[in-house]
Amino acid sequence: MTDTVLFILEIVGTAVFAASGALAGLQRQLDAFGVVILGVCTACGGGVIRDLTLGITPPVMFCQPVYALVAMGVSALVFLPAVRHLLAVESRAYELVMLWLDSIGLGLFTVVGVQCAFQQAQDYNLFLLVFVGVITGVGGGVLRDVLSNQKPYIFVKHFYACPTLIGALLCALCWRHLGDIPSMLLGAAVILVLRLCAAHFRWGLPHAADLPE
Amino acid sequence: MTDTVLFILEIVGTAVFAASGALAGLQRQLDAFGVVILGVCTACGGGVIRDLTLGITPPVMFCQPVYALVAMGVSALVFLPAVRHLLAVESRAYELVMLWLDSIGLGLFTVVGVQCAFQQAQDYNLFLLVFVGVITGVGGGVLRDVLSNQKPYIFVKHFYACPTLIGALLCALCWRHLGDIPSMLLGAAVILVLRLCAAHFRWGLPHAADLPE
Amino acid sequence: MTDTVLFILEIVGTAVFAASGALAGLQRQLDAFGVVILGVCTACGGGVIRDLTLGITPPVMFCQPVYALVAMGVSALVFLPAVRHLLAVESRAYELVMLWLDSIGLGLFTVVGVQCAFQQAQDYNLFLLVFVGVITGVGGGVLRDVLSNQKPYIFVKHFYACPTLIGALLCALCWRHLGDIPSMLLGAAVILVLRLCAAHFRWGLPHAADLPE
Repeated sequence: MTDTVLFILEIVGTAVFAASGALAGLQRQLDAFGVVILGVCTACGGGVIRDLTLGITPPVMFCQPVYALVAMGVSALVFLPAVRHLLAVESRAYELVMLWLDSIGLGLFTVVGVQCAFQQAQDYNLFLLVFVGVITGVGGGVLRDVLSNQKPYIFVKHFYACPTLIGALLCALCWRHLGDIPSMLLGAAVILVLRLCAAHFRWGLPHAADLPE
Repeated sequence: MTDTVLFILEIVGTAVFAASGALAGLQRQLDAFGVVILGVCTACGGGVIRDLTLGITPPVMFCQPVYALVAMGVSALVFLPAVRHLLAVESRAYELVMLWLDSIGLGLFTVVGVQCAFQQAQDYNLFLLVFVGVITGVGGGVLRDVLSNQKPYIFVKHFYACPTLIGALLCALCWRHLGDIPSMLLGAAVILVLRLCAAHFRWGLPHAADLPE
Repeated sequence: MTDTVLFILEIVGTAVFAASGALAGLQRQLDAFGVVILGVCTACGGGVIRDLTLGITPPVMFCQPVYALVAMGVSALVFLPAVRHLLAVESRAYELVMLWLDSIGLGLFTVVGVQCAFQQAQDYNLFLLVFVGVITGVGGGVLRDVLSNQKPYIFVKHFYACPTLIGALLCALCWRHLGDIPSMLLGAAVILVLRLCAAHFRWGLPHAADLPE
């Protein structure tokens, strides 16, 4: 049961992150292959960083082709005329679709990272669980931004790392009380809601320029 | 016998990738040390990524100085007046030399990556063999482009990842039928020929902008 | 005794590298969270690269929260009005403060990297010791520059990698004669002095453009 739910969460996370990477590639005028590669890197990057950190070699995505295949399929779908047409007509659509895709992927990968750290050793300290969760969640997106030569999202978008940290902490703290699946769903939901609220209400942290000196 | 051929292939791959990195550094106006460092990163980056992925620590290049020393020597050679003079006079020379160096290195490192994955475990699935080959081949070049702050070659050059994938697949499929050395030479040759053809006949994949909506 | 000195060196290195990362974030107009994240990545990046290279998983910084906490605290301090005011008034201050912070951190992390490689195996060759020292020292700074989308310091600043190499070599060579702590202090001091001299006397290596053809 746990394994099935976990697998579904991972596949959904992979699909939405692949779509966000492919969209970023489309926006940057890459060709079909570049779009697919950027999609796969974004979808699988976080997991690879997580596995290398925990000492799982070769990383899971190299042993089980399903993740890369899902990422390739989804990235190719983004190249369909209907999708590109929508993005061309509705300029605001790109920002909005990206926000949703990125937030869902961020939430799912963060809690999957926490779960993976728990599985490796039951006696890991809270700090490691939360940190592994955070780098799993943000890793793919940072890779996408570095590879497509943009200022990483995590530095410029208000309130990107903050919800990830809160969600990972909540997930790790509730683990023993609520059980694994409920904790993961709670953590992912909190991350999604916090990010959507931040975007809607334009929450932000102070910039150096805004502060009194 | 196999070990000798493998060693020669690795050294040649290291030398041509080092030259491509050093040339990129020269083009970007780096100083002598920057040119050498970029050469070493390009030549050794793919191997380090391969070893970390397969769980070989410390990576081979840290234990056997010969790879880094060859990369340093070749990068320093690129700094010779004669080489720089040629590049300055013939503006087209840079593109052409880079294409050849990069294609030879890409082919050799890809098949060396497949060989290395086979050696670690005989029962690896085809997907892992091909994927490890591809990241070993493209890793050094991506590192070169990210470190010198350029859009990675792999996203913008038509037909960069495609031949790598085809060559790695061919090499892995022929392994048991043709033997290791013939499979590696075949895979590397296919990658080189496909890339040169792609550049000569201007093969390319559709860009989003070219497609009917 | 050795452990205590080593711990102090690591914490000081973490603090100064965190400050350099946070300053770079401030300069790039990041918000409070971005500044802290860049500080943590800079301070902990070199250590993570070192641990992955030596096969120490999970990396030390994930198991012992003290490093990340010190990095967070220091990065937050950089956000104080007094610090920002000083930087705004004295435009030259940024360059000078960055040079000192970066040089101290570079020296300390390089020798800590050499120590860590020694500890993993007594029979490592000199090449591995020096190389692990160098990537530990420069790793955090390269990560800072790549993440903040700048040409890595190591390529553009005269005499950045050279002192690191000299200091790491000196530290590794003196290890058995002088003992561990004196060798480390010597190596770190040499790196600091060489970098400050290089900046003061404007030492530099030839650029391609300067050389006769």
